[in-house]
Amino acid sequence: MNIHILSLFPEMFAGVFNTSILKKAQEKNEVVLNVLNFRDFSGNKHHQVDDYPYGGGAGMVLKPEPLFNAVESLTTNTEQKRRIILLCPQGERFSQQKAEELSQEEELIFICGHYEGYDERIREHLITDEISLGDFVLTGGELAAMTIVDSVVRLLPNVLGNAESHEKDSFSTGLLEHPHYTRPVEYRGYKVPDVLLSGNHAEIEKWRREQSLKRTAERRPELLETAELTDRDKQVLRVLKSYHK
Amino acid sequence: MNIHILSLFPEMFAGVFNTSILKKAQEKNEVVLNVLNFRDFSGNKHHQVDDYPYGGGAGMVLKPEPLFNAVESLTTNTEQKRRIILLCPQGERFSQQKAEELSQEEELIFICGHYEGYDERIREHLITDEISLGDFVLTGGELAAMTIVDSVVRLLPNVLGNAESHEKDSFSTGLLEHPHYTRPVEYRGYKVPDVLLSGNHAEIEKWRREQSLKRTAERRPELLETAELTDRDKQVLRVLKSYHK
Repeated sequence: MNIHILSLFPEMFAGVFNTSILKKAQEKNEVVLNVLNFRDFSGNKHHQVDDYPYGGGAGMVLKPEPLFNAVESLTTNTEQKRRIILLCPQGERFSQQKAEELSQEEELIFICGHYEGYDERIREHLITDEISLGDFVLTGGELAAMTIVDSVVRLLPNVLGNAESHEKDSFSTGLLEHPHYTRPVEYRGYKVPDVLLSGNHAEIEKWRREQSLKRTAERRPELLETAELTDRDKQVLRVLKSYHK
Repeated sequence: MNIHILSLFPEMFAGVFNTSILKKAQEKNEVVLNVLNFRDFSGNKHHQVDDYPYGGGAGMVLKPEPLFNAVESLTTNTEQKRRIILLCPQGERFSQQKAEELSQEEELIFICGHYEGYDERIREHLITDEISLGDFVLTGGELAAMTIVDSVVRLLPNVLGNAESHEKDSFSTGLLEHPHYTRPVEYRGYKVPDVLLSGNHAEIEKWRREQSLKRTAERRPELLETAELTDRDKQVLRVLKSYHK
């Protein structure tokens, strides 16, 4: 997969892109991460990328030319499937489902604004997607782009080893994860639950499933509506509910 | 405000923390950003921070000692209000409201795991909050911590100038932002709407409000339930709705 990032602050990305899974994925040639400064595509001698808004008002607006030019500089193979993604608070909220969808593409281009609006013609005539990380305000789209890249690249084939793929369980069962414990068996008087030391694997699995149901019921009850539940799960949930009455 | 980050990958943070608003906020002494490697607090000679889970299963689990030790190394003033935040998919979903709440604190400590579970005793006896960026899986908590830090620090007094504060409007009215346009007035045949060139400020405001309502109705209709709407707004929405029938 080829991923291009268009940003006015390319220096923000190196620390994240050269560490851990993203570093490994590049070393294995599963992904190419390319960060471009779209100021280099301004098309004017003062390298201006923004201007005042028509109609007045506070703040500056990113001009269309630099972003159109930067995206077009990347168009080498018109047959290639690609997505051009604008990071903005008005976009579709990012989710694991979106990460899976994007991981099927051959090329992703992310456009990161930085505390400025985008000229509407960028939205209407250049991009294919608008994505928001959530209902909060960030200084720019860079952290959103890094976050999406991380969640997408870890889904590519051959990127995760067994050790790393574990945490994914959290969403794949449709329930929140059960508690984990490791050594020491007692720390400052706080002990590991006896069942986990029992060696009885059936009991351990039963306990873990109950804990997973309990945590989900307490924190994210809406997930229970879509999770696959056995008859025993439903019985556990009825018992939990009766305690809360 | 003092912000401490506990991570096994401290090198991920420099690019983000030394750029733009976060850089300025540190230069103005509005915030101190301190990144620690909790491997330095392992308390064992092999600097081990994780171990196999009790009860079996894939993956590793972060041990309690390194994180308890690292957090306690920061406890200099017990009178100080502080929040100890675990980044994890099971946590409360981050929002602008949470950013505002956290921006009132004097000290924040973020604990970033990295594709491993946390020993449950960390959850039960060390932290004050669990936060998730959203329903997607990341390699670690580092990007979530950076994102939360960015959204919190920009709310601190004296951090944002007028130019940068503009984008905040997006959430403060309860509606999505209206479209923006800047020069050139025509780009590749795509023109700026006439009303924005009219100089008629009342008409411009009216158009912007309508566009804001339209975009919100199309993309995030649930926001309309809590937004403050005038009688004219409601009329605009009724007209929009009748077009969609």
